[in-house]
Amino acid sequence: MAGSVFGKLLQISTFGESHGAAFGVVIDGFPAGVALTPELIRPYMDRRRPGTSSVTTSRSEADAVEILSGVFDGRTTGAPVAMLIRNTSQRSSDYEAIRDLYRPGHADYGFDAKYGFRDYRGGGRSSGRETAARVAAGALCMQLLEMLGVTCTAYTASIGPVTASVQPEDPVDRALVASSATGMPDPAADERAKAYIEECHARGDSAGGVVVCTVTGLPAGIGDPVFDKLDARLAQAVMSIGAVKAVEIGDGIQAAMHTGSENNDAFLPDGRGGVTKRTNHAGGILGGISDGSPVIVRAHFKPTPSVAGEQDTVNTAHEAAKIAVQGRHDPCVVPRAVVVVESMCAITVLDALLVNMSARADRIADFYSDLRGNS
Amino acid sequence: MAGSVFGKLLQISTFGESHGAAFGVVIDGFPAGVALTPELIRPYMDRRRPGTSSVTTSRSEADAVEILSGVFDGRTTGAPVAMLIRNTSQRSSDYEAIRDLYRPGHADYGFDAKYGFRDYRGGGRSSGRETAARVAAGALCMQLLEMLGVTCTAYTASIGPVTASVQPEDPVDRALVASSATGMPDPAADERAKAYIEECHARGDSAGGVVVCTVTGLPAGIGDPVFDKLDARLAQAVMSIGAVKAVEIGDGIQAAMHTGSENNDAFLPDGRGGVTKRTNHAGGILGGISDGSPVIVRAHFKPTPSVAGEQDTVNTAHEAAKIAVQGRHDPCVVPRAVVVVESMCAITVLDALLVNMSARADRIADFYSDLRGNS
Amino acid sequence: MAGSVFGKLLQISTFGESHGAAFGVVIDGFPAGVALTPELIRPYMDRRRPGTSSVTTSRSEADAVEILSGVFDGRTTGAPVAMLIRNTSQRSSDYEAIRDLYRPGHADYGFDAKYGFRDYRGGGRSSGRETAARVAAGALCMQLLEMLGVTCTAYTASIGPVTASVQPEDPVDRALVASSATGMPDPAADERAKAYIEECHARGDSAGGVVVCTVTGLPAGIGDPVFDKLDARLAQAVMSIGAVKAVEIGDGIQAAMHTGSENNDAFLPDGRGGVTKRTNHAGGILGGISDGSPVIVRAHFKPTPSVAGEQDTVNTAHEAAKIAVQGRHDPCVVPRAVVVVESMCAITVLDALLVNMSARADRIADFYSDLRGNS
Amino acid sequence: MAGSVFGKLLQISTFGESHGAAFGVVIDGFPAGVALTPELIRPYMDRRRPGTSSVTTSRSEADAVEILSGVFDGRTTGAPVAMLIRNTSQRSSDYEAIRDLYRPGHADYGFDAKYGFRDYRGGGRSSGRETAARVAAGALCMQLLEMLGVTCTAYTASIGPVTASVQPEDPVDRALVASSATGMPDPAADERAKAYIEECHARGDSAGGVVVCTVTGLPAGIGDPVFDKLDARLAQAVMSIGAVKAVEIGDGIQAAMHTGSENNDAFLPDGRGGVTKRTNHAGGILGGISDGSPVIVRAHFKPTPSVAGEQDTVNTAHEAAKIAVQGRHDPCVVPRAVVVVESMCAITVLDALLVNMSARADRIADFYSDLRGNS
Repeated sequence: MAGSVFGKLLQISTFGESHGAAFGVVIDGFPAGVALTPELIRPYMDRRRPGTSSVTTSRSEADAVEILSGVFDGRTTGAPVAMLIRNTSQRSSDYEAIRDLYRPGHADYGFDAKYGFRDYRGGGRSSGRETAARVAAGALCMQLLEMLGVTCTAYTASIGPVTASVQPEDPVDRALVASSATGMPDPAADERAKAYIEECHARGDSAGGVVVCTVTGLPAGIGDPVFDKLDARLAQAVMSIGAVKAVEIGDGIQAAMHTGSENNDAFLPDGRGGVTKRTNHAGGILGGISDGSPVIVRAHFKPTPSVAGEQDTVNTAHEAAKIAVQGRHDPCVVPRAVVVVESMCAITVLDALLVNMSARADRIADFYSDLRGNS
Repeated sequence: MAGSVFGKLLQISTFGESHGAAFGVVIDGFPAGVALTPELIRPYMDRRRPGTSSVTTSRSEADAVEILSGVFDGRTTGAPVAMLIRNTSQRSSDYEAIRDLYRPGHADYGFDAKYGFRDYRGGGRSSGRETAARVAAGALCMQLLEMLGVTCTAYTASIGPVTASVQPEDPVDRALVASSATGMPDPAADERAKAYIEECHARGDSAGGVVVCTVTGLPAGIGDPVFDKLDARLAQAVMSIGAVKAVEIGDGIQAAMHTGSENNDAFLPDGRGGVTKRTNHAGGILGGISDGSPVIVRAHFKPTPSVAGEQDTVNTAHEAAKIAVQGRHDPCVVPRAVVVVESMCAITVLDALLVNMSARADRIADFYSDLRGNS
Repeated sequence: MAGSVFGKLLQISTFGESHGAAFGVVIDGFPAGVALTPELIRPYMDRRRPGTSSVTTSRSEADAVEILSGVFDGRTTGAPVAMLIRNTSQRSSDYEAIRDLYRPGHADYGFDAKYGFRDYRGGGRSSGRETAARVAAGALCMQLLEMLGVTCTAYTASIGPVTASVQPEDPVDRALVASSATGMPDPAADERAKAYIEECHARGDSAGGVVVCTVTGLPAGIGDPVFDKLDARLAQAVMSIGAVKAVEIGDGIQAAMHTGSENNDAFLPDGRGGVTKRTNHAGGILGGISDGSPVIVRAHFKPTPSVAGEQDTVNTAHEAAKIAVQGRHDPCVVPRAVVVVESMCAITVLDALLVNMSARADRIADFYSDLRGNS
Repeated sequence: MAGSVFGKLLQISTFGESHGAAFGVVIDGFPAGVALTPELIRPYMDRRRPGTSSVTTSRSEADAVEILSGVFDGRTTGAPVAMLIRNTSQRSSDYEAIRDLYRPGHADYGFDAKYGFRDYRGGGRSSGRETAARVAAGALCMQLLEMLGVTCTAYTASIGPVTASVQPEDPVDRALVASSATGMPDPAADERAKAYIEECHARGDSAGGVVVCTVTGLPAGIGDPVFDKLDARLAQAVMSIGAVKAVEIGDGIQAAMHTGSENNDAFLPDGRGGVTKRTNHAGGILGGISDGSPVIVRAHFKPTPSVAGEQDTVNTAHEAAKIAVQGRHDPCVVPRAVVVVESMCAITVLDALLVNMSARADRIADFYSDLRGNS
């Protein structure tokens, strides 16, 4: 209830601080029978792992995942899955200089106001490293989504002024996203974005950007009509990632500027007895419920607040002070955040799929009738 | 769990359909001792009530609120507060023509996919009328927020291409918002926006727009660090309003285009022993926790999907069909949605304030020490 | 979160006070497609309705249920089902004499300590009338349980010293339970129990008793292993009924006195490829999960605290005082509580059945594979 | 949602299996500023630790607790507290003989029915070792309860036919409980109970018993009126401990046999401006809310189902079979369960105290007024 638990049927609970012993995640309500090994999680962790390119922090963490529970003979058992990621590269001394200062753009001041004191070393609980635990959970969810024919794919759409030449409806090459420096599936733009980040970094500044996540294969009818609309849950999930300041679904802010006749997506027969849409301005969600088209989510990340230049601030006694944030920081969090957005969308969508199983009495009756027949 | 319950300590549960008997709301966890009468709720309901201007639907509903429980001698008792709003102006015959058709931009198709059948009359559960129940709950929350020195004020920032000349940090005249046709606290822009909506309506089309909500007086330290960040909860709350397609906090999407040195808000001593900020790009929330500056939320509404012109669609047998949506609809939902955004922000912020009371052991000990002293 | 919401996937929220306008219940997460009319609810309400016999209160309430939402064409739609029960026979004047006194055995003192004031008329929120809302919800759940082949049957096992001659494993005649004065499916004991209650009542005293509920047809595998064990959820559900002071599963307290070799239930092949047990000391639940045998729950009710004789108490100024509770009270709540226990068991079991649908990845994959095939 | 999360404001989530890598617990919502070190947890863990006496299993586990997160400079930070307990003495080979058999009295069959397969080694998730994680959480909660003047004390009231000579209202010597073999604060009875367990064990059988927990210092007004009654929450908490088959509050089942005039507890002035009661049949809870008297909970434990004698059962193919359970088991779980009951009561009561802080608007206003004054 203090906010480190997410989900309805599937409950994800993360713990850990950037300069404590470890990060970790407990996933309660994960179904039995899904393959889970460290090797299956590894590729997702690697996409978020620091120290792999010139545009990320020089803090190097292996981010090895130890699976503590919930797995037997390589498959989930239905018991809570706990995964642990030890911190190995803390350098707390980096933070001595700022223990009594509030870093602009950071949660330091809010933490002190809320809790009376804080772990001043590297952001503590609000560190971006917390998202490693989310990625481990997301990777597991993606194993099951795959069994259900659902795919989540995120990529970098822009960094500062550099925009990738890719439309939300385009199929995205996941390998290209994973191998690029910035997460852009557009090699030319990736080069320019990388250069832009390096330039910001060189002058002690930082950059923001935009991540898009597309969910394909989701059947129509997933999500709930009122407070737990699929888009509302996705908005919480994505806005809960540290630096996100805006979330859009489908055309998002553009929709507000168009008229109804422009913005409506016409329904069409899909030629196989089903329904499709001529356009997808809605981003796959109408009235909070999926419509069978790809779900499209855009997350806007602010620039990293840790910048090298001198800034005005106050100290913990609320006196005026100057600060220049040293330490190892990403000059732009976007490249490493791509897989975090993907993970949060995967967790949210899987949870909605599980909740949806009890929407109709006839299907529940069929489910239990089959179960009795098989016992 | 099917998504009609919102909140953590304060749980809001709405019910009702546009062509059923009534809408209503149950508020569990609302503290004892807050004044509540129908008269206190009335002004909020009136701001959302249809049929009051040329830019809203001609469906006329009194939206009288009956308080069913949780109040004794004009004050809340700590028991669940239930409030009921009877439907009085249903015209279900309007919908006969479309009972077998899926309206583009509406949830009809998703509802059928999810539940196997639906109440085809006027949107059923996904009707905008559901928000009347939210406004009743929001009005109650605002009574208590006022006792705590916190104010939520929403207004219309733009409709289609017409933008009000008001900045998020400007103090907003609530009376002006309430008396204007479109919710804009800028009479000249209000006139132009009204004309724009009328023009869209005249040609059988509809408009979207943007609502801003500002929360002032919120102390620093409110909100939780991870999944239940204050901005993440606000994002869910606001995105759960029917036509919202994007949510921004503070500078929102603009933040992604700036550098860290531009986007950071410098902290300053406030001259009274406290802390303030030179700018408020962050919109009052850092790392999910309030920083003492005004909280600023922007909600982007798509244009009303019910338009009079003929559109392509499919019928419930998934065959191609044509549809022209008749019935009584708002040509733009934004004017009436202003108080809905305000309500959802009020509910979310009050809930966060209640949860925050148990953040610190020393304050808990003080609380119970005082309580024992007084008994 | 203030405790008027129960359930996980199926969330039941009651509201109302004994001398307010009404009681009601909102059921969120109830599946679509289940028949619901006032007529289907009526027989359950009648079993709890006061004023029907010499052993219940003379307060006469029709307990007519108005279905406010969630139903279309006589079937649930998947939207929240709200049901309203108006109070019609309040006699608040009965309570003027005790507005400043705390009734022994009642929650009056606790309410004042908690909320600072209370609706002193007839118990307010802690009135037994609140259970009318639970029965309405339970009746709806029983419609769906029936579709799934699961039956909940409660009856009175004892009142004061009078014990019905029926064993938990005996099939119980529901009609006999409903038509008896005390809820005992044993006409001779029913007569004696009725006489015992009348005798207590005549001398201004009151009686307690025991209700047993048996759930048959529940497949093995329902419930969760740790905190949400099926028996743990049932214990909360049943203990949450006003006067219940003890809950037993299966042999309950007797189990603690036996040895393992006596208490273990041997498993046996059932002759049809399934599994049965030689005995059912466990009451159908092992390790929190159903084992396919009938689930057996025993609820022990204290005697009604409202007695006519003079008692020592304190007033709201905490001064010594005398009290003799007048008003209309049941001399024994057990007869009317039978259907309440049944309802709470039905709600709990149905919720567990819904949650259980997402226990296994293979079944989830089958479910969605079927759904895609049918679309 | 799969049942390994407990609590409302304070959410306890356990993970782990008896023959996996580890057990652990994550406590979300625990307030900042409470002392936490492994040394503070140690004495509680030792009370549950196996291998310390002739009446417990010979499996020897150090049960060393590693604090993974949520603590800085020896105090909680408000972030989730994760604690890890490695398994060190697994002997999975003990279970090879029974991998295809369902042990009577165990959850094996239910697990297979639910999840399709199970970790057959030592009970997996339903192992009594899971309660080690609960004890770690309970120990932390007791640190804060102590700051609030609230004490939870559990002890063994009976084992098989041997009953300790102690009344619920008697002050209990915690050291005596901790140092006794069986948890009885009555040395003579402790000797007899120990002899009884040894005798059961010698003939390959097992014993059950009763644990009482008393909560003192709890102010009146804690708990909620309807589904989350304090006793209802306690009932779930205690019934969720593996072998518990009955829970009583106060006089429990005895209450059902008395009349109202016998069972009511008269209120009296306490001589210091407060209120007390002449008796405490109610066990400190009326209408689900604490009344200021000690809260008294009784938990009835079944005998250990693992017995050495041959029993009838079925195998995983549902064929008749014989089983004699070897391995290392407690012949009676009660001695080690005492601290588990105490922990579950502590967690439940602390959660209720936190939730209660938002019960009254005036106290909330005072709280925030103080907070603004201090900033």
